[in-house]
Amino acid sequence: MKNNVPQKSVPQKVNKRIGVIERYFDILPVSSKTPVITLSEGSTPLIKADNLKKILGVNFNLYLKYEGLNPTGSFKDRGMTVAVSKAAELGAKAVICASTGNTSASASAYAVRAGIKSIVVIPEGAIALGKLSQALIHGAEVVAVKGNFDRCLEIVIEICENYDVELVNSINPNRIEGQKTAAYEIAEALGDTPGYQFMPVGNAGNITAYWKGYKELNEKRNLKLPVMMGFQAAGSAPIVEGKIVKDPRTIATAIKIGNPASWKQAESARDESDGVIDKVTDEEILSAWQNLADREGVFVEPASAASFAGLKKYLKEGNFDPDFRGNVVCILTGHGLKDPDRAIDTVSRPPVVEDSVDKVVETAGIK
Amino acid sequence: MKNNVPQKSVPQKVNKRIGVIERYFDILPVSSKTPVITLSEGSTPLIKADNLKKILGVNFNLYLKYEGLNPTGSFKDRGMTVAVSKAAELGAKAVICASTGNTSASASAYAVRAGIKSIVVIPEGAIALGKLSQALIHGAEVVAVKGNFDRCLEIVIEICENYDVELVNSINPNRIEGQKTAAYEIAEALGDTPGYQFMPVGNAGNITAYWKGYKELNEKRNLKLPVMMGFQAAGSAPIVEGKIVKDPRTIATAIKIGNPASWKQAESARDESDGVIDKVTDEEILSAWQNLADREGVFVEPASAASFAGLKKYLKEGNFDPDFRGNVVCILTGHGLKDPDRAIDTVSRPPVVEDSVDKVVETAGIK
Repeated sequence: MKNNVPQKSVPQKVNKRIGVIERYFDILPVSSKTPVITLSEGSTPLIKADNLKKILGVNFNLYLKYEGLNPTGSFKDRGMTVAVSKAAELGAKAVICASTGNTSASASAYAVRAGIKSIVVIPEGAIALGKLSQALIHGAEVVAVKGNFDRCLEIVIEICENYDVELVNSINPNRIEGQKTAAYEIAEALGDTPGYQFMPVGNAGNITAYWKGYKELNEKRNLKLPVMMGFQAAGSAPIVEGKIVKDPRTIATAIKIGNPASWKQAESARDESDGVIDKVTDEEILSAWQNLADREGVFVEPASAASFAGLKKYLKEGNFDPDFRGNVVCILTGHGLKDPDRAIDTVSRPPVVEDSVDKVVETAGIK
Repeated sequence: MKNNVPQKSVPQKVNKRIGVIERYFDILPVSSKTPVITLSEGSTPLIKADNLKKILGVNFNLYLKYEGLNPTGSFKDRGMTVAVSKAAELGAKAVICASTGNTSASASAYAVRAGIKSIVVIPEGAIALGKLSQALIHGAEVVAVKGNFDRCLEIVIEICENYDVELVNSINPNRIEGQKTAAYEIAEALGDTPGYQFMPVGNAGNITAYWKGYKELNEKRNLKLPVMMGFQAAGSAPIVEGKIVKDPRTIATAIKIGNPASWKQAESARDESDGVIDKVTDEEILSAWQNLADREGVFVEPASAASFAGLKKYLKEGNFDPDFRGNVVCILTGHGLKDPDRAIDTVSRPPVVEDSVDKVVETAGIK
């Protein structure tokens, strides 16, 4: 091995994945003075779901926006690159967030990249394994609180009012600005905005962000406004019930939120788009989650499947036209690897056999 | 909610993430008759690692090819899209693989998308949690064998000789063809091939694939050949030791392989590039793994960190010039969420406190 390879630079067409600040500089609250803290988030695939289309027996084009392929495995990275870059621009020494897991994973990853301390406040015992591992390995100061997410959010807001710490929850408008870029990507991939968008609703920052993106596309490029179809988990559906849920319950931990920070904005997105915010049961979520994995090969965290569960429910109840002529997008917010225990618990453990060809052939049912 | 939004199609610049078969059609063994089974794999980011550059005190440009952002969380998807598409073209009813986990996750995801049965044979008790969850949720027929990976591979090869099942391990040349596209992406992102490429070596299919890609780029576009720097885990280093390791041991489960299928090809890549295949200890791997996560915000599975561990080792021992003028790339093969237990076990569990601002402020050390 010699360390003297000549570095002859041959110009090539540059074709690389860039982050959302670089890709959408003109529509984000950044300037040439903003240090760009990026992990090349965004540019997630819009996957055509023809297997699910066949199972559902529908005639519209069905697409899955697989946000789990962001660097930390969830859509949060789109907003976090903007929020942490702006915090770095302001010279912040620390960022803080309350989190059901995905926000803490993202905040801690971007903060270490920026050389900023991250503090994450999580509800005790309510975070999926993968997400907790992320905050820890990215060096966050993690504090588990004996209370739910909503209480964690109250605490971090109060801390930011009294200490020199930047809040990076989605009530930070830079988060919403970054997250709206997903709407732009969908419009670019389809060559148009979709007719309908189904998505999970938890703290409601994401539906707020998509709606902002679509409204901008409508104003600037004259694209139609999609109908926004938001779904909460039945045991954690404050917007649907019209009241705070004191003790939210659902296996979909990422949307286990009883008092959404962007409640009013979510209602606006619903009303302005002539859409709905409705609920799906844990059973409906898990059934949809399994369909995505064992029909389309797309593994998501349970909360993500609330979008497809909502579509299934509306079709089943006759509230959605299977012959709709157009594009329907389901947003899948996080990767299934965030919550591996859920899959392990759901399906049966593999059989263990001796190391013989015959045993494997017999056990696997090979003919 | 009304289901009658007009579908006025406004043409836009199409700017979407496409899979490797579509992106690299001309250099892959596919034709217009090949059904394209894709999850939009590839197009992974090449992340600049300026924090690590500073810590190392080096002057070269350091990049991380973050292959964990493929759909199933590892580089295997690049080859699997080609292997499963070709299997579908041939009318295969089932695919089979031996796996330390990543191959089975990928094979099962692409197989369900193709409507083909997948059978995965894994060594009992030697698969990281996340990966096992993937094969199970994607509906694979999983059989755990009382033997190591090498024995599993022998078994599936024998099965394919006697039954109507397609092998999708990396001895299937379509896998190598697909995986070589990562070399093209690196060259496109840099505008040149790198001077040096550090990467993990397990079954040695990936170093074989990259080297094939770089040789093609050299022949077709006159780009220089990188020096290939491969690293095995010290307890599982057959190529370094020059003999089969009967009982490989390492925490880096993805490269825990004692008898690599592409042994000879890996030696060719090493010799033709004037490179090395060397080993790093589990301690060196874990230290590098933690550096990536808590300095750059990039969470990988332990095996991936063998690349950066190798670079650190060579710099420390004076075998690599810190003032090298050029680009150095470390390949990061899989996402950290594949093995969340490792992170949980490595760092301390978060403290649990009452839901009070004062307690959180005190515990997190906020001033």
